Amino acid sequence: MTTKPRRGRPLKNAQENRDTKAELIRSGLEQLTENGFASSGIDPILKRVGVPKGSFYHYFPSKEAFGLAVIESYANYFANKLDTYLLDVNTPPLIRIKNFANNAKTGLERHHFKRGCLIGNLGQEVDLLPESFRPVLINVFMEWQNRIADCLEIAKANHDLSQSTDCKKLAECFWIGWEGAVSRTRLVKSIAPLDNYFDNFIASLPR
Amino acid sequence: MTTKPRRGRPLKNAQENRDTKAELIRSGLEQLTENGFASSGIDPILKRVGVPKGSFYHYFPSKEAFGLAVIESYANYFANKLDTYLLDVNTPPLIRIKNFANNAKTGLERHHFKRGCLIGNLGQEVDLLPESFRPVLINVFMEWQNRIADCLEIAKANHDLSQSTDCKKLAECFWIGWEGAVSRTRLVKSIAPLDNYFDNFIASLPR
Repeated sequence: MTTKPRRGRPLKNAQENRDTKAELIRSGLEQLTENGFASSGIDPILKRVGVPKGSFYHYFPSKEAFGLAVIESYANYFANKLDTYLLDVNTPPLIRIKNFANNAKTGLERHHFKRGCLIGNLGQEVDLLPESFRPVLINVFMEWQNRIADCLEIAKANHDLSQSTDCKKLAECFWIGWEGAVSRTRLVKSIAPLDNYFDNFIASLPR
Repeated sequence: MTTKPRRGRPLKNAQENRDTKAELIRSGLEQLTENGFASSGIDPILKRVGVPKGSFYHYFPSKEAFGLAVIESYANYFANKLDTYLLDVNTPPLIRIKNFANNAKTGLERHHFKRGCLIGNLGQEVDLLPESFRPVLINVFMEWQNRIADCLEIAKANHDLSQSTDCKKLAECFWIGWEGAVSRTRLVKSIAPLDNYFDNFIASLPR
């Protein structure tokens, strides 16, 4: 190990390093939920955090690795949000899903329909992205699907759903329609399509 | 009016001009159904048609005008496709919708899930597009929705649907879910999500 003093900017300490990395991910989340990946430059993300362009590769080996870190961060955040609502044992299972939907609607409105679903955005442009993104995005949808399926299974056990319900398939349908509804809600800048979609989903459940 | 002879390349005749314009729109359709607008350069579109970059503005005043022409062309093509299936008086109305879905599925497979729905793609990235695109995209969805709603009304008149069905709302739900299903089908490169979505749509109709 060399003991010779480094030239140039002093190395940040490990804590500061982690903080900057977390801030870059947070800034990337904002940028990518609004604009997707293919047309998002790194520049506005760095600018918000105040990191010079040349330093980016100090934190992430590539734009691809950065994108994957942003997806992981979003997936964790969203899985926690889903668990908050879907594992709420004091609430009937179908109402848990409704409570999640209401929370998501509030979020869309708060950001004036500018921010959508990161996974939906990236899924839409997946053919333009590094091929490593595809299985990661599919897996995030699977994790969400499993959570909704588990909640539907409880509804089925409670006889709120028909005993012939295929909860996994129905949960896939839920997310397919959900992503379409978030996209339409952003297009028309109104919560009405998401309301219409969700009300129809609940009303048309097999009883 | 000047009678002085033009310098430079001879003006193409009107027919050739129209043909090149149509070819540019066709090439734009391919490019934009695969990649969307924001990250699509004009260059690959011109290259496919063999039009030099400097000549683009001979055919279209701007990239925005070109995008709108591509949307119009796609909307016309798709409206005709819908009419082919949904106005087929020899087929029960819900089967007409199924026939349209089967045709669309064949198209997605034929293009190896590379090409999606132009309107869905552009809707997803609408915040990055010229603001003039938003009402145009909303209007295209409305035209599709009206066509499905009319077909559902026939099903209702035939007592294939409950008399309390709000066909306009249900038609909006159809397209919301459809766009989500096309997006997921492209992500997983399999027709399974579109099949799951469509089967569930038909099975859960109010009878």
